[in-house]
Parts: sequence; structure tokens; C-alpha cells
Amino acid sequence: MEQSNTAFGLAARDATGVLAPFSFPLRAKGEDDIILNILYCGICHSDLSTIKNEWGNAIYPVVPGHEIVGVVTEVGHNVQKFKVGDKVGIGYFISSCLSCDNCKQDSENYCPQLVTTFNSSYPDGTPTYGGFSDKLVVNEHFAVRIPTKLPLDKVAPLLCAGIAVYNPLKEHGLNEPGKHLGVVGLGGLGHLAVKFAKAFGVKVTVISTSPDKEKEAIEKLGADSFIVSRDPEQMKAAMGTMDGILDTIAADHSLMPLFALLKTRGKLIALAGMTKPTELSLYPIMAGGKMLAGTLIGGVKDMQEMLSFAEEHNITAEVEVIGMDDVNIAMERLQKGDVRFRFVINVANSISLS
Amino acid sequence: MEQSNTAFGLAARDATGVLAPFSFPLRAKGEDDIILNILYCGICHSDLSTIKNEWGNAIYPVVPGHEIVGVVTEVGHNVQKFKVGDKVGIGYFISSCLSCDNCKQDSENYCPQLVTTFNSSYPDGTPTYGGFSDKLVVNEHFAVRIPTKLPLDKVAPLLCAGIAVYNPLKEHGLNEPGKHLGVVGLGGLGHLAVKFAKAFGVKVTVISTSPDKEKEAIEKLGADSFIVSRDPEQMKAAMGTMDGILDTIAADHSLMPLFALLKTRGKLIALAGMTKPTELSLYPIMAGGKMLAGTLIGGVKDMQEMLSFAEEHNITAEVEVIGMDDVNIAMERLQKGDVRFRFVINVANSISLS
Repeated sequence: MEQSNTAFGLAARDATGVLAPFSFPLRAKGEDDIILNILYCGICHSDLSTIKNEWGNAIYPVVPGHEIVGVVTEVGHNVQKFKVGDKVGIGYFISSCLSCDNCKQDSENYCPQLVTTFNSSYPDGTPTYGGFSDKLVVNEHFAVRIPTKLPLDKVAPLLCAGIAVYNPLKEHGLNEPGKHLGVVGLGGLGHLAVKFAKAFGVKVTVISTSPDKEKEAIEKLGADSFIVSRDPEQMKAAMGTMDGILDTIAADHSLMPLFALLKTRGKLIALAGMTKPTELSLYPIMAGGKMLAGTLIGGVKDMQEMLSFAEEHNITAEVEVIGMDDVNIAMERLQKGDVRFRFVINVANSISLS
Repeated sequence: MEQSNTAFGLAARDATGVLAPFSFPLRAKGEDDIILNILYCGICHSDLSTIKNEWGNAIYPVVPGHEIVGVVTEVGHNVQKFKVGDKVGIGYFISSCLSCDNCKQDSENYCPQLVTTFNSSYPDGTPTYGGFSDKLVVNEHFAVRIPTKLPLDKVAPLLCAGIAVYNPLKEHGLNEPGKHLGVVGLGGLGHLAVKFAKAFGVKVTVISTSPDKEKEAIEKLGADSFIVSRDPEQMKAAMGTMDGILDTIAADHSLMPLFALLKTRGKLIALAGMTKPTELSLYPIMAGGKMLAGTLIGGVKDMQEMLSFAEEHNITAEVEVIGMDDVNIAMERLQKGDVRFRFVINVANSISLS
């Protein structure tokens, strides 16, 4: 049975970022495509930044959402990876050229023709609408299999926040037991960074402006220690102790105090783009043989591997599940950092409310 | 026969940077020390920056110079590496703790207790005076053997400029044949970067503000191509083509146009500390999985290896040899970039003039 070719969701129409009901034509299914009914969608801070046009790149109407778990309802003729009924995940992107060097090396995330899951368009101009909606059509290549053992709502944030922290740990050799990792910020990305790093056998220190997160960081998430970044004494005591730091903070801040925490040849990995350029002094970086690296999520193969690792180590996100009609309030709370640690929308069970 | 315990050289007394005759007591020779008569000393841009106190760290009087080639005239009782008459080289540093993790891993250059060859002091407070002088006492560990086949004057710049470019090429995997390296700036470091990279079998593009350096870069130094950094068309055409870039420019400049030249996962290596902090936009770095790394020269073992590689591939610096009485004029010319490509002082043959 063919589905209706209309999808329903929530879209922002302008930089107020207010999300309101929106229906749109579902992209026509091709031979390599699957259609899924969206079950859950996590809320990433970049959803908020985009709908408020903080990066100046919003293409309204914007239906955000790229931490998507769904169930396959239709498959194209050429589809091989999935069948109807399979649980699949979609992350930050839903298309790439599949022929460039990056794509050929399983780094679709760095393809120059990357099509992101929302606020983008296919080469033919078809706009992309994200997971704050009931249905999605996607080339099977860009979907990953959801491990059966893990709860679907808590898995959704792994599709962006999870891969965003897993990939740099692996790519930069910070997944080796005995290494010491700093995690800056204990939000959606940060709390998963702690969980993945601990599963790798890495020593983890959380660095946060909020002293009240110490108990959660250590007792709930398993971090080894906690530093209040505004306390010069604590920062001084930790100087030169870390092999790497994952910086998950999108708010503007100086990177130099973080470089001071690194050992010789330590790596500071920027995972969240600040809205403004940041000032960097080169000499302290040179004098320690240090580096600043940026990474942006990961490729499809990495995503599947990350999910397998998560299943093996029972890693899922700490989530607050909400309905579609709670999303605007959730966005306000997210803006204030008032969430432990990720909002996830139970899309399938609340789509009729919107 | 014991030498005189007084050394003579040229020192700057204040931020005018004017160098004038200066005599100072030679450090007492210890059991692990060698004494050398200085034959040649290269002029590094950091000599200029220090004597003019551009980094605010000058400790006057400053006797600059850390690209030193000398001949051993005395050895302490425990000295094993060298004997009287050996030709030795001294680079950026002359002491470190030899017991920290960095020192144990042959990265004395990153030792927290590093004592630089000039404008520094030993733990007991003894000041260090550099190679613009006739004699030097140094622990044998920090001296390297000069290959017999290479001319001593042209070797001197390898001790700082040479290792400064050789080490990052090796450490960051930019020494693999077929890789494409950008070299920003064609001065003392840049011209050696071209020579070393070509010897490694790497494709080299020189990036310079001076179109008049193209001929030299390609015909004399062997670079494969040349980009005028002020030409937007040339810069655009080279976008996304380079595996790595060595940035040798100390003058303040933006790094973002350089990041654009890098391929995915490309590495921008900063070799010269700018005097002011530089502004960095994180998103373009993240979106290409790129990185900024700083390195500061190399360890003693790396220096010896670099010299062997230089001997094997007949790599030396292009130099203009001057006498001690030409040094102030040379500094003025260096300030204007008027040197192809490194001044080297023939110390031994001109010391009496000063």
C-alpha cells in the first residue's frame, strides 16, 4: 500500500524560531529509497540555532530535526539493506555525491555536496525537511540499523550527538585506555562523550561552568573528576594533564585556558561552532606541540559502528521525552540549558496534536 | 690548555636592538660539557624579534644567535659523544631537565624547564648568551654532530630553520611521497621547507605575497607551483588541494584563507608565532575535519636525524655570509625581508672586528 505523499510536521517560519504546524509534499520515492514513519527525534542545539537563524543560513520554512529513529514502511526496488518493519536511524545528513574521495573513503560527512537532513536541498532543488515531522524519504545508504537491544527514544540522540563525540575520540586516538580526556560542557554531546570515553577505558574530567553538575557528572555518568572552569585554582591544578579535550560549547568562549590543560602534543577538538570567530594565540600552541582540530559528526559506516559499540556497552542518552506540542517550550528550556541531557520528541505518538 | 674564561660577542642593550660589543664570563665547564669555538651562526627572525623585544620577553643584554656551528676545543671528563676538533651544532636550546616525560621521549624541545640558547638562564641563574659570540659551553647532550660532507656556513641555518620545518613534516605525516604541501612564506624557514619536502618526494606549492619570488621558488628551490596569496583567483583555484601547509610567516595575518586551501583532514602547521592573537572561525575547520597544529623546532635526536637526511639529500641553506661588523645592517635588511634566504655570520673570521 502506498502512503500518502503529504507529510506533516512543525516548521519555523522566521527568526523568532516559533514552530507551528506545516504540511509539505513528501519527496517521491526512488529505487534506492526507503520511506520511514518517524518514531522519535532528538533535539540538537543546532536545531535551535538554525530556526533562530543564528548562523545566518536559515531557509524558511525550517522543519528541524536530525536525530531520527523511524520504522521502514516502504522500500524502493533496489533497496538491499532494509525491509519494511526495520528500525532505522537518520543523522545529520541524508545525501552526498557518493563519488568523491571523501564519499569513497566513508567520510560522506565531508562531501562537498552534502545534503543535510533539514534546511538544505537536493541537487534538483527539492528542499529537505527534518525529523520534527511524521515521514521521511531517504536513500538507504544514509540510514543505519538501530540495534535491537537499545530503547529507541534513548538511541535517537546517538545519531548526531553520539557520532559527534564518538568519531573524534577514534579519529584522534583519544579512545585508548589510560588516556586522559577533558569534556567541556555537560549537555547533549558532553554527557555522551563521558559515556563513550569511559566505555573506551579513558580517564574523564568534565570541565563546566556549573558546579551543580559535578554530582551528576561523577555519580550518574561515571566521570573521574570535575573542574569548574571559572575557578582559576582548579584550572591551574589541572594544567598540562590532558591528552585531549572535546569542547562541546557553542557559546562564545576563549580556547586558550583549555589549551593550557593539555599535555605536550595534546589535542583540543572543537565540536560546536561558535557564532563569532575566536582569538587564538599561537605561541602557547607551538610551545607544546599542541593542536586544534575540528570534526563534524561522522560517516555512515562510522555511525553504524558507533551504534554497535553503544549496544555492546549499553550506552544511550539520558533523555526527557516530550510530545510535539511541547516543542516550543522545550526550545526555550534548551536555550537556557535546562535539560538533562537531551529532549527527544515522541513523534509517532503525538503527531496528531500538532 | 684551558681557554680564557671570557667570551666576546655582540649584545643588544635595549629595544632599539642595536648590537654592540659585549664581553661576558664563560660558564664554568662541567664534567658533561664541551666548549666550542663558534665558527658560523645563522640569523633567525626570532633573533630580531627578541633584540627588539617584540615579544616582551627580552632580558638585556641579549646576545642572540641559535644556529651555531662550532669546533670543540675542550671536553669535560664525562664527555663521550665528542672529542676536541669535532664540528658540532647547537640549536634553539642548550639545556633541559632530561628527566621529564618529554625529555625521556626525545622531545627536549617541549621540556617545561627548557633553557634556550640565548635570552634565558640556567636553573642556577646563569644567563645564556647565544652564537653572536666567540665561545660557548654546553652539555654535550645538546650538541649534534655536523655531517662532514656539508659546507659549515650553509649548515648553520639547519640547526633552527631546518629542524623547524623537518620535524612537523615528519610528525604530521607530511613527508609521504605524493602528498601536496603548501609552504607559506619563502624566507629562511620556507626555502628549507621546499628543499626538505621535495627530498621527501612531496609536491610543493609556495604561497607568497611576493610574485617576484616565483622564479626562485620553482627554478632554484624546486617547488612545483607558486601562488600569489594576494590574488583571489589563484587562491580560489587552489582551494581544497593541499594535505598540509607549513606557515612560516611571523607577521600578523589571517589563517582562514589558508584553511580553505586544505583538503579534508588537512593540517595547517604554524611555525612562527604572530605577535598578536589571530582570529579563527571554527566552522570551516570543523566542516573539513581540519586542524591547526603548532610545533616548535625538534628534539636533539630529531636534529641529528635531520642532519643525516640533509647530508644524504645534499640539503643546505641558501646563505649570504657576513662578518660580525655587518650584523646591524643585516638586521635592518632582515626586517625588510631583504635576504635570500638566510644571513650567516662568519664568526671565527670576523670576531676581532667587533
